[in-house]
Amino acid sequence: MAKKKIGKQTIQFIDPPSIISTTSIVGPKEGKGPLSQYFDIILDDDLYGEDSWEKAESKMVKEAVKLAAMQKKLHLEDIDYLFAGDLLNQLMSSSFAARDLRIPYFGLFGACSTMAESLSLAAIMIEGGFADYVVATTSSHFSSAERQFRFPLELGNQRPLTSQWTVTGAGAAILAPTEEKGPYITRITTGRVIDYGIKDANNMGAAMAPAAVDTIKAYFQDTGESPNDFDLIVTGDLGRIGNEIAIDLLRKEGMPINKTLKDCGVEIFDHAKQDTHAGGSGCGCSAVVFCGYLYKLLKKDIFKKILLVSTGALLSPTSIQQGESIPSIAHAVAIEGQLKG
Amino acid sequence: MAKKKIGKQTIQFIDPPSIISTTSIVGPKEGKGPLSQYFDIILDDDLYGEDSWEKAESKMVKEAVKLAAMQKKLHLEDIDYLFAGDLLNQLMSSSFAARDLRIPYFGLFGACSTMAESLSLAAIMIEGGFADYVVATTSSHFSSAERQFRFPLELGNQRPLTSQWTVTGAGAAILAPTEEKGPYITRITTGRVIDYGIKDANNMGAAMAPAAVDTIKAYFQDTGESPNDFDLIVTGDLGRIGNEIAIDLLRKEGMPINKTLKDCGVEIFDHAKQDTHAGGSGCGCSAVVFCGYLYKLLKKDIFKKILLVSTGALLSPTSIQQGESIPSIAHAVAIEGQLKG
Repeated sequence: MAKKKIGKQTIQFIDPPSIISTTSIVGPKEGKGPLSQYFDIILDDDLYGEDSWEKAESKMVKEAVKLAAMQKKLHLEDIDYLFAGDLLNQLMSSSFAARDLRIPYFGLFGACSTMAESLSLAAIMIEGGFADYVVATTSSHFSSAERQFRFPLELGNQRPLTSQWTVTGAGAAILAPTEEKGPYITRITTGRVIDYGIKDANNMGAAMAPAAVDTIKAYFQDTGESPNDFDLIVTGDLGRIGNEIAIDLLRKEGMPINKTLKDCGVEIFDHAKQDTHAGGSGCGCSAVVFCGYLYKLLKKDIFKKILLVSTGALLSPTSIQQGESIPSIAHAVAIEGQLKG
Repeated sequence: MAKKKIGKQTIQFIDPPSIISTTSIVGPKEGKGPLSQYFDIILDDDLYGEDSWEKAESKMVKEAVKLAAMQKKLHLEDIDYLFAGDLLNQLMSSSFAARDLRIPYFGLFGACSTMAESLSLAAIMIEGGFADYVVATTSSHFSSAERQFRFPLELGNQRPLTSQWTVTGAGAAILAPTEEKGPYITRITTGRVIDYGIKDANNMGAAMAPAAVDTIKAYFQDTGESPNDFDLIVTGDLGRIGNEIAIDLLRKEGMPINKTLKDCGVEIFDHAKQDTHAGGSGCGCSAVVFCGYLYKLLKKDIFKKILLVSTGALLSPTSIQQGESIPSIAHAVAIEGQLKG
């Protein structure tokens, strides 16, 4: 068996890559939410000086990567690889950002699981000795996603209470070898596609919850750890409904996780005041919650060990029109502030 | 510098991963082309028993992976990771195949460069000691691509002579550590996004040619090798027009490559008889030309060393509507039948 693989789905890094720098950029609504103080840049206009939402989203990616590099006095040429992805068809946001950044580029698609997917592959590049610096980044934008996946905003459609609000934001994280200070990525669990037959594109939390549970279960089976080893297990963006379903499913699997199971989509908005229904979603959601809030609390040693489980609903408007259910996926990344021993 | 990196963009594998098995499945038109004898399965109906082209494309991916595994008597559970991507919005073809295959899944998007992208990342997983078996697969389908990127087929639109014909096909390759027999992936060069300002979505060859040249140049600069070291340098799918531009640009760069520079999009169809204008394209194009034709000739020692340079035009209908030019990318994978020494 491959020497770094433990169990069926998990890689344990012998030399855990360090996350040396992160940047988070969010839109105006996210900037009024409960995590406001943790974001590096809050836009006051979600067009960000561009003439379309898609281009604004792409600019967020570009600026997030540049700022993450600047914080460590790195030039863009110092970065070996860019792993990026977003929700837009053909990754318009990532591809156009990559054009301007000129870093060798791997485009990824995992819907809202993409932040954990990009962190996983970036960590593999570093730990395998293939690169010195790798950047992992993802983005989403409420207005570009809404018109692509649902309705033109101009229609003013009502949204069902199970629906989630796509986060406007981009997060970027730069990884380097163990020699750098933490936090460190110590393990990753790569998800399988899970589909319990949910067909309602306005209830993605319900579709994604079983995928989150499958990956969390795999992580604990593969590693022999228990939820008590973590300060926080945080799913990507199940939202309030998906979060409840996940807690319920985990209990049925004999894995009662209550207090430590949070969700990026629940944390980012104030449910009572911000009218975001089931909570936040989008690739940018777990990206900015991780690169903003979680990373900073790991740095300050307030969190010692977290499990980030970004979740993605792999539906397309075409698959929904063809009567298909929603395949979902979740990838887990274990991040620790300090290395033991 | 990372120990396996040479130059700016190239990784040299210390223990080159072996490609132990490939499968290629193509549609009826590809099955009438000049490479017909090399494909494992030729469909007589491009719906493949499904009720939509998208589902037919997804079935090709699934069957290609299953057959590639079967050839080496592997069960799907033996495969550690699936790297897959396609042209459809939100990777409908790959995501639904991954749902049925149940292999831990990384979704990729690099347009028609995806086969080289998936081979690159699969090789990294194997050589880094992260996995024992990894499958790399991509697909495209003329009818699903045409209605997504251009016009409903029912309109019977005329196609300009610069346009390319999306290949209906899927290729899958299984990689394992060096101990297995060749061919081997010895080096990879990861592309940057290049954009020379071409805005004509019906002339993707012209848009992609500079990206192919950029990556080929990087490969030879990084490695110190010369085109004479190769039996064949084969671009993904520049088509006839892009191929001519690439030869011209390479000559201007002081790198005259003539006889050894071929293109998967040119090779797969009979230009005179099959009415495919500038040639084939689509993720499936370099996938089936590699997994069918090239792999078999490497196995038979007719080719000793090739450079596969899959090229992707990263446009989306939205980016074209917004007046953007076409960003392109190319990834190179050096494949050798035998290892020296």
